[in-house]
Order: sequence, then structure tokens, then C-alpha cells
Amino acid sequence: MSVPVPVPAPVPVPAPAPAPVPIVIDCDPGHDDALAILLAAGDPGVDLLAVTTVAGNQTLEKTTLNALRVCTVAGITGVPVAAGCAAPLVEPLRVAEDVHGVSGLDGPRFPEPSLAAEPEHAVELLRRILAGHPEPVTLVPTAPLTNIALLLTRYPELAGRIREIVLMGGSTDRGNRTPAAEFNIHTDPEAADIVFRSGVPVTMCGLNVTHQALATPEVVARFEALDTDLGRICAELLDFFAGTYRQLWGFRAPPVHDPVAVARVIDPGMVTCVDAHVAVELHGRHTRGATVVDLHGTLGRSANARVAVGLRADLFWDRLLAAVAALGGSGTGQSAPPAEGRT
Amino acid sequence: MSVPVPVPAPVPVPAPAPAPVPIVIDCDPGHDDALAILLAAGDPGVDLLAVTTVAGNQTLEKTTLNALRVCTVAGITGVPVAAGCAAPLVEPLRVAEDVHGVSGLDGPRFPEPSLAAEPEHAVELLRRILAGHPEPVTLVPTAPLTNIALLLTRYPELAGRIREIVLMGGSTDRGNRTPAAEFNIHTDPEAADIVFRSGVPVTMCGLNVTHQALATPEVVARFEALDTDLGRICAELLDFFAGTYRQLWGFRAPPVHDPVAVARVIDPGMVTCVDAHVAVELHGRHTRGATVVDLHGTLGRSANARVAVGLRADLFWDRLLAAVAALGGSGTGQSAPPAEGRT
Amino acid sequence: MSVPVPVPAPVPVPAPAPAPVPIVIDCDPGHDDALAILLAAGDPGVDLLAVTTVAGNQTLEKTTLNALRVCTVAGITGVPVAAGCAAPLVEPLRVAEDVHGVSGLDGPRFPEPSLAAEPEHAVELLRRILAGHPEPVTLVPTAPLTNIALLLTRYPELAGRIREIVLMGGSTDRGNRTPAAEFNIHTDPEAADIVFRSGVPVTMCGLNVTHQALATPEVVARFEALDTDLGRICAELLDFFAGTYRQLWGFRAPPVHDPVAVARVIDPGMVTCVDAHVAVELHGRHTRGATVVDLHGTLGRSANARVAVGLRADLFWDRLLAAVAALGGSGTGQSAPPAEGRT
Amino acid sequence: MSVPVPVPAPVPVPAPAPAPVPIVIDCDPGHDDALAILLAAGDPGVDLLAVTTVAGNQTLEKTTLNALRVCTVAGITGVPVAAGCAAPLVEPLRVAEDVHGVSGLDGPRFPEPSLAAEPEHAVELLRRILAGHPEPVTLVPTAPLTNIALLLTRYPELAGRIREIVLMGGSTDRGNRTPAAEFNIHTDPEAADIVFRSGVPVTMCGLNVTHQALATPEVVARFEALDTDLGRICAELLDFFAGTYRQLWGFRAPPVHDPVAVARVIDPGMVTCVDAHVAVELHGRHTRGATVVDLHGTLGRSANARVAVGLRADLFWDRLLAAVAALGGSGTGQSAPPAEGRT
Repeated sequence: MSVPVPVPAPVPVPAPAPAPVPIVIDCDPGHDDALAILLAAGDPGVDLLAVTTVAGNQTLEKTTLNALRVCTVAGITGVPVAAGCAAPLVEPLRVAEDVHGVSGLDGPRFPEPSLAAEPEHAVELLRRILAGHPEPVTLVPTAPLTNIALLLTRYPELAGRIREIVLMGGSTDRGNRTPAAEFNIHTDPEAADIVFRSGVPVTMCGLNVTHQALATPEVVARFEALDTDLGRICAELLDFFAGTYRQLWGFRAPPVHDPVAVARVIDPGMVTCVDAHVAVELHGRHTRGATVVDLHGTLGRSANARVAVGLRADLFWDRLLAAVAALGGSGTGQSAPPAEGRT
Repeated sequence: MSVPVPVPAPVPVPAPAPAPVPIVIDCDPGHDDALAILLAAGDPGVDLLAVTTVAGNQTLEKTTLNALRVCTVAGITGVPVAAGCAAPLVEPLRVAEDVHGVSGLDGPRFPEPSLAAEPEHAVELLRRILAGHPEPVTLVPTAPLTNIALLLTRYPELAGRIREIVLMGGSTDRGNRTPAAEFNIHTDPEAADIVFRSGVPVTMCGLNVTHQALATPEVVARFEALDTDLGRICAELLDFFAGTYRQLWGFRAPPVHDPVAVARVIDPGMVTCVDAHVAVELHGRHTRGATVVDLHGTLGRSANARVAVGLRADLFWDRLLAAVAALGGSGTGQSAPPAEGRT
Repeated sequence: MSVPVPVPAPVPVPAPAPAPVPIVIDCDPGHDDALAILLAAGDPGVDLLAVTTVAGNQTLEKTTLNALRVCTVAGITGVPVAAGCAAPLVEPLRVAEDVHGVSGLDGPRFPEPSLAAEPEHAVELLRRILAGHPEPVTLVPTAPLTNIALLLTRYPELAGRIREIVLMGGSTDRGNRTPAAEFNIHTDPEAADIVFRSGVPVTMCGLNVTHQALATPEVVARFEALDTDLGRICAELLDFFAGTYRQLWGFRAPPVHDPVAVARVIDPGMVTCVDAHVAVELHGRHTRGATVVDLHGTLGRSANARVAVGLRADLFWDRLLAAVAALGGSGTGQSAPPAEGRT
Repeated sequence: MSVPVPVPAPVPVPAPAPAPVPIVIDCDPGHDDALAILLAAGDPGVDLLAVTTVAGNQTLEKTTLNALRVCTVAGITGVPVAAGCAAPLVEPLRVAEDVHGVSGLDGPRFPEPSLAAEPEHAVELLRRILAGHPEPVTLVPTAPLTNIALLLTRYPELAGRIREIVLMGGSTDRGNRTPAAEFNIHTDPEAADIVFRSGVPVTMCGLNVTHQALATPEVVARFEALDTDLGRICAELLDFFAGTYRQLWGFRAPPVHDPVAVARVIDPGMVTCVDAHVAVELHGRHTRGATVVDLHGTLGRSANARVAVGLRADLFWDRLLAAVAALGGSGTGQSAPPAEGRT
């Protein structure tokens, strides 16, 4: 048992925004990234303005292709996809082929994407969206934070146009890439440090909560029971993911990390948070990339983040299933209309 | 939820030694150190050869005085007490007055000790015991590892005379002195590093298990119900400890860390362990003193420690209560004989 | 005496380019930056395409204003000036007010600049120049490397358009901002690391050579003897600089660091170099920002930089004086034409 | 050129002690350690009470054997030799076979030692000497500081019995084991940190001065011209040393580091020092073991050491030659009496 998490006393949760909340997902699909895109595209609570990609789980080329594959099979049109940084700021890239396979999205067979990536760089697309959208936009990074750090470094004047950064990454306790560090933060610790110290409101959804989003056989069965192509693809993704998580870490069912960040935006009540100071360890020999979360104020520093500590897993799965059902997906015998025109 | 702890597959537990196991407790009392001494002195499973002290929870002068106080009130005689290092190897000492109070053992009123510390340094007493005892001796450090590191550095030839080092310290997940580091390891990380890399068999009982040894009001009531002076002193210690743990970390009941290491020696079945590589972070800016425990073999290094991952709390409390009952304690109306002559 | 510098054996000096070499100076004026601009604008060996600015010696606002002041008093027109990053990538900015004064260019009284900075960001101006110039361009950073690192991160495809990065920064031995680290590298170590590991040819002109470019009273007298406004401004800059160097480090005459990098481009023979591996220390407690230069191949790593180890100071001063004389300068009684149209 | 060393303003040099100054040499012979022993044994300015050995240039077994060899060939009797630590506190040992050869003292052929090491540990011998000598004793470590750190950790009460620690180690600028770190400090950085922060007066004779003690062919010829066995052995040691220094670092003549520390004790005027703060870098990735010497007070910390910045090389060689001449040496045709009874 760990130190008890402080009772989530009245934390200043952002007042319910006029739904849907405009968001951009910055991702490196990645099995759970794929599900995050589906949740964002299919749920009425958020308005998915764009998908940007970055190197992480696989190379930039592969993660971008995978984002296009996901949009294609889900019938997501009208949502621009743009590729960003091909490598972390300081570290060389080391992909997670052991977790996500050679393609970065092993498992299902995907048709050729019917969509193309935008010609502009992810950071330029983000700039354009932030500058042009009538209201501040929420960024949902589910990948190494290279693109977001570059955005903040290159366009610091746009920080005020970001409503929140709700990210999947880090952990309040143990990591996965190393015993101390979670993959996204470990892959680009300097970028994460830039984000946490940026002054932009940051919500961190770390392994401590995403490990509560376990895709059990019952969950997988629910995807299959949708009886749509997209539902089957989800099930196949989860089957592959279950295999690697079982083998690498002995999980009985794979945690579906990235949609948790989207879920937090859709309904803050699904993901309980506390305010805390988060420091990114840049300098350790065994702990580089660890997120040091001062849950008990031991260090006497002001909170710089909201840190997720609890998940309503039942609500989470209901919402994710509903989103996939709403999307329908290409080639399904069902008549669900595509998500086109959401932007 | 954290990454699932691997199922404690058949771990090579040391074959049950001919009871009682000869041990030395190296400590910095400290509320829970006090209970560790009582458990070791009162339980038939171990033979407490000596108590050595070190700076940590309080200054060396205070921790040594406290060790003598505990032995006095518990009627523990014939067990030599020797003071060791007054400061960590490299770090300046920073005591835990916020946790253990000004005396290091705040709460009860103690009579003047009727015992005196040995004139020799703790490391010399350890040397003498290791060199002279007919069988290898188990060291049970429940404090910063300065004395033990100094012993191994000064007398490397005695490493083979140590059966095991079963220590309270570290954590598989979060710390307490900082979000990343547990107090004992954080106080002298270099000493801990020396111990973990010494080649001597090491068992680490960290916060992840000691936080399962919670002295709930029911537990405190059982100490009071012994109706002995020593039982009342234990209850008073736990009351004080409960206060600081409630205030600092919001615990509903205080964890009694140090006796867990003694319990592991008494009955390995009380404390489940897995083999893993443990690295001590010496170089981080936010993580210095963290124990990086590779529970899943992610780093591909050979295990250098047994790491406690489970506690049979019910058995633990039964054993601790029985030990305190067996000791009786000075000034009690009861007739329990002192533990004299145990060595 | 230090370890003897290896004899500069036949180092692959770039073949003499068709003069003038097209360059951009990226700077944070700064007294010696000012002289670097003058050397670049007034010497026929280089073609100064642009001046970009960054936070360092002073805030971005001040260094940009100072660049415009220098261009104004030197009559440098037709050379665009663009402001870049206002803060290092990871570190907070700490300016060198103790060295360069409140304005960043204390000493002379400057008239209001008659020029304005470009509206575009330094990195965009660099991109435009690199993409558009008929031949590869040499970058000459004399400031923290934030802009250059951002350029390489955002536009990695332009790396091949950079002929060389010839920077003032680092040291083969002692630093100045700290005993171990030189100011430019210390201010943004991550940016420096990105540059040294980028694969672009890098030449490092560090303190070990720039401390040979001492503006002695004789040198200052030569500037005064030019009998131009610009010569007098140079002398006043050097007088102020002499004062801070005398006070802070006990120098008998101030080292004029930044023009040394320009001199290396103008005539490689003025600045002797050896090939060596340079690592930027990101993680030390007392050494962050140090450039660890493996002059003797002790570490067995391939060279990633040319490292300046010798300066022909006589040639250097002749060239700098000639450049200032050639510029003439506004308000001088002399008839030297402005440098307009150099691009 | 480096930053100018501050003029050695009136530094509080210890008042001339009643000669001879009692010293213990703690060493890892090692070619230059051998010469340090000879200087200490043969010069009337110091009283060599003991020689202690430690692992460093070679294993403890070899460095101890070498100390005995040196004493044997020099006819040094009555000076106890004791072996100390076989490994650094935290780091694994990496010997300097590339510099000192397989034996640690390659070059001459040594006869079997006629002396034996004391049975007691170096730290116990040091304790006995410090506790028993009528006046405070100067320690002269010319090796990794493991023994000295262990002494201070184990017997902190004896710190006041140490008059000074005058060590060979570190550098004000470049290292030799790595570009940043000198061998002795790099081998056991934690031990060095303990020594520099101990409060005992420390004088550091680093590479910056020992590289001025070059054994040129003229110097070697002077040893040969002594026409004694010991003089010839010195010449052979220097010949071997010249070879490795030429090959590894391109030195024209080898620097004879360790006797410089002894020279400082014999005559402080031979080795000019300034007061400065010295920090040992424990945490860098490329700079571990560097001595960060704040010669200009840039960091605003109080001086914790005297740092050697100048050497009177002519006096140094005269003194070393005279010492070797005085010793005479075994097997020489000359009638110089052995140094026996010096203590």
C-alpha cells in the first residue's frame, strides 16, 4: 500500500465549459492513442479540431500513418492531421516496438488510409488553431511532449490561448519504461519539464490512474458486441495490447492509458484530481524522466498541476464504448453516420 | 493502482535457520525503531546480540539515549548498546524532528536509563560480534546505513560473516522524506548504495510493505490491554506517532515500519519477497535517495536484493503484541521476568 | 601549465570558400557582440546576411535594441535584424548585468536607432535565408544557442543548408559564469547540446582562445586614433568592458570574445583549431554547462567539433580595426560610405 | 590563456613549523608516489612517520608491494608501511595500468622487499599516530582519498589532531583521467568530497601546478649523475613515465605530480597557493570527479582550501635531487647511511 492519497478536497475544477470543449489531440498512435482519437471523435463532449503526431511509440512516419489509418477506419473526416517532431529535443528517439509492434499499431489489418496528412508542421497547425479559434483550446497530448514544448518555445505569446493541457504521462508512483519513469515523459524529459513549468494549466493523467482503465475480456467483449468493423478493430487492438502487457509486466488485462486524458476533458468527474507540485527529473542516473509528484506538500512548493488520482472506470468504459458505437466506422453494415463536420 | 506486483513465484527463501536467528539491530530510535527492539528482544525467533545506533531520526546522542531508554523500560539486559556514526558519509545530517519530536522518541515519559552504552564504536562491536559468533549473523538496520557501509568498507573481509542484511528502508514506489525517497535511504544514499552493491544478501523492507503495518486504534487498544507499563508506553509511542503521520501525510493510522524487518527474520512467511535489482539514485535533483526497484526485469539486470512486497499484517501484530507481553517491562505489576540472558 | 595542447596536425580546414562567405550572426549584444557585428559588416571576407538576436547578456528586448543601435551607429543598412527567443529552452534566464551593465551595452551614449527589427521571428528569418540563399550559409552564434537549437528542432531538413556553425562559447578549461562553465553555454546547456550533437559541422571558439584577444590600452588607443565616431564608440565600449573584467576577474585588459568567431570565418588561419569530441555537461551540480573537450582522445569518441586552440592576435586586431575603419560610422567627419547594399 | 590567476595576495600561510614537520604519506605507488616517498624520507624538512597505501594506480596488493620496494631500495627503515582500502567508497576500482604499467611501478627491476607491511589497517595506523604524536600531524595523500575519508568518518574526533591535509589531486582547469577530472579525485569522488568538506585545513596541489614539475631529460640526467643505485632507479622510473605521458597526452617530459605535495610541506614558498572554494562534482555525466575551484569568488562561497597555483620548479628539483642523494640507497658504492631512526 502506498501513502494514502489525500482526500480530494474541494479542488478548483474548471467550471463546466459550454460543451463541446474544443481540443487537439497530440499523439503517437499507438494502440491507446487510437482509442483516444476514437473517444474524442465520437463523444459529444469534445470537439476534435485536429490530430497532431509526434515520434514516440514509433517513428513519426509510422505514428502519422497510424493516425490516418484510425481516422480512415473510423470515418473521421474534416479533422486535419499534421505531423510534428521526428525526435525528442535532447534525447535520441527509442521507440516502444516491444509494446506496440513494428507498425506501432500491430494487431488489426488496416486498409490504406483514404486521408492525407496536412502539408504543414504540427506546430504550425497548432499555432493556426490557437490563434484562430474563438475560444481557448484544450490540448490533449498522449505522447512525448516534444511538439507542445516546441509550440511553447516558438510561440510563447499563444500560451494564453491554451485553456488547459490535459496530458497522459508520468505517474505518481512507478513508471513503465523504467521502474521510475513513464514512457512519454521518459522519451522527452526536457519537453515535459518545459510544459510543467510553462504556467499553462496542466492536468497530468499518469499511470497511477490509467492502470485502472483495464481492458478486461469483458470490456473487449463489449467492443465485439458492437458488431461493427470499428468495434472489431478495437477488439483486435486490445487483444494485441493485452499480449504485450501480459508478457512485459504480467498484467491480467492491458491498461488503456490515453483515452483517460480525453475522458478528463469530457467529464472532469470521471477523473478525480488533486493539486500538486510536479517536477520532472532531468538529471538522475536511474530516474531520468520520473515525475516527482508532491502529493502531500512535503517540499513546500506551490502546485503547478492537477494530478489525476482516481478514475470512475465504469463511466469511462461506457463513454468509450458509446463513442465507438457513435462513430460506426467504415464498411460496417450499420448506418451510423460519419463524424464529418464536427469542426 | 500500480503496476501489478509479479506473483511471488517460488523465491529462494533462506531455509529456516535453527531458531533463534542471531541478529544485531542497527537503529536510530525513533518510535518504530523502539518497537523493532522490543520485537527482537521479546520474540523467541531471534537472538538479539546487540543494538547499535546511528544518527538519523535524531542526533547520535539522542538515538543512543533512546535505545538505552527502550532497553531500560523493557528490562532488556545483557544486550550491549554501542553508538556509531554521528553523520552520514557525504550528506549533512537532517533529522526527522517533525516525525519523531525533539527527543526522537516523544510521547511517553521515560525514566533515566539504568544502562550505559558500550565505550566502543558500533562498527567495532559489529566487527567483534561477526568475527566471534559461531554462525553468520543477520544485520537488521532500521536506520540510515552509515554504520553498515562503514563496516563493509573498513572490514570487507567480514562480509562473509554476515548471513543477511534485512533492512527497513526504501520503497518500490513513493517515498516519505521526499516524494521519491524514503527517509533512511535519503539520509545516506551513498551508504545505501554501498550496501546494495556489496554482494551480501540484502532484503529490503520498504514503505510499500511497512505502510501495511498500520497501528490502528484497535492495535493501540491491544497494547493498552496488556495492562503493563511497557504496553502503555507502546500505546503512548503510537499515539504520538499517529499524530505526526496524520498531520504530515494524512494517514488514518501510523505505519510501524521498523519491526517489519525484524518480522521478516523471525518468520519469512510474514513478509513476502521477490527478487529484483535495486539501484539507489545518487545523482538526481528531485530523486536523490530513491530506490529504483526493477520488479519486472525491465532493465535486464540481475537481482541484487530480495524486495518485500507483501505483509501478513494480522500475524505481524500478533507477534509484536506477544513480544511486548513476553518482555513484561520494568515497574509492571505483572511478574514477567526480564529478557536477561538471551544472548 | 595545462596539459599541452596537441600539435595542430593537418586538420581538415574547409577549403577557402569563394569570398565573401555568407553568414548570419546570432547574438545578444553585449559589448563583444557589438564588435563582432562590426567586424562582419566591415570586413570584405564575409557577407553579413542578417543579424538575429536572443536573450542572454540581457533580455531579448534589450539585446535587440542594442543590435539596432550598433547597426545605426555603424551605418549598417540593408542587413535585417530579427528577434528570436526570449528565454533559454529549459533554464530560466539570468542576464549578465554585472558584465554588460543595465542596458547590456553600457558605456557609450547611443542615438535612437534609425532601423527597426523585422516583424518575423529570428528562426523564420533564418529559415528563409537558409532556404533561399544560393549557397550554404555559415551561422555565427555569439550568444546562448537557443535560436539555433530551435531552428534545428523545427526545421531539421535545413541542416544541410548550413555550411558551418562557428560559435563563440565554451572553453577547453575554465569557465567564466561559473568556474566550470562559460556564459553562453551555461545559459542554455540543452540548446548547446542540441547543436553539438546535430551533425552540422561545428567550430567552437571558447574562452581558451578568446582570452588571447585582449583589448589592451594600446588596442583601445588604435580605435581612438581612427578619429571617427564609430572608433570612439568602440573605445568607450572597451573602456566599460575593461572595468567589469578588471573588477570581476582581475583581467588587466578585457577579452573581446565574439569577434574571434567571425575572424575564424574570415580567415581560418587566424584561429588554429583541432578536431575533438565536445560534450556539454547537462547534469552536474557544480559543472552544468561545462564543455568537456577531449583534446587527447582519452574517451575514445569521434570528434564532433573543431575546437579553437590558438589565435593570431596581431592579425585579429588588424582585421577588426580595418573593419571599423571601413565602416566609418554615422556622424563622423570622414566620408566613409555606409555599408549599405552588402547583401 | 586561461583566466588570470588572482595575484597571490597575502595568504595566511601556516607559520613555519618547528622543522621537521611530522607527516604521513598516503599513496598508491605509482612512479611519482615513489619519488614523493623519497623526497619525504630524504629531506630534513619533514619527518616521515609512516607510509600508508590504498588502491588507485594499481590494486592495493600491488601499491603496498611497491611502497615496500621503494623503502627497500632507498634503505628507508623504521618507517611503518600499512595497507588500507582495496576499493573506493562507492565506485568500482579502475586502475591506471596505461600510465604506471602492470606492476604499478614498471621500469626498473626491483629486488624483493626486505621489509613487510604492518599487520594493522592503514586507518588504524593513522589513528594510532594521530592519537599518539605529541604534535598535530600533516597528512600528505598522493592517491585516491579513500583511506583519509574513512579515517575522518570512523574517527571524527581525531580531525583536530591533523595539522593539515596537503594532497596531490584535482586541477584548477583540465583533468587527466577524463578531460574534466584528475585521476585521484576521479577514482573516489565521494572520498574527496568528504575531505574537502571536513573542516580540516586542506591544501590542494593539482595538475595545474604539478604539470610544471616536468622531468626533462636534463632532470633525468641529474638523477643519473648521482651515480647511485637509487639515482639510477629514479632515472628508470622517469624514463618509463616519460614514455606513457608522451604516448597518452603528447607531453615532451613527464610531470612528477606527487612530490609537489611533499614540497609544499617542506617549504611553502616552493608552491604558491591561494585560498578558494573547491567543490567536488559528484553528479555530472561527463564531469564526475572534477574539482570546481572558484578562484575568483564567482560563487560567493567561503574558501575551504588552499589551492596551489605556482611552483618554483628549480627549487623543487634541487630539493628532490638532494633528498635522493641523501638517501644513498642500498647497494650503492657510496657510504650514505640509511635513513633509519628518522622517526
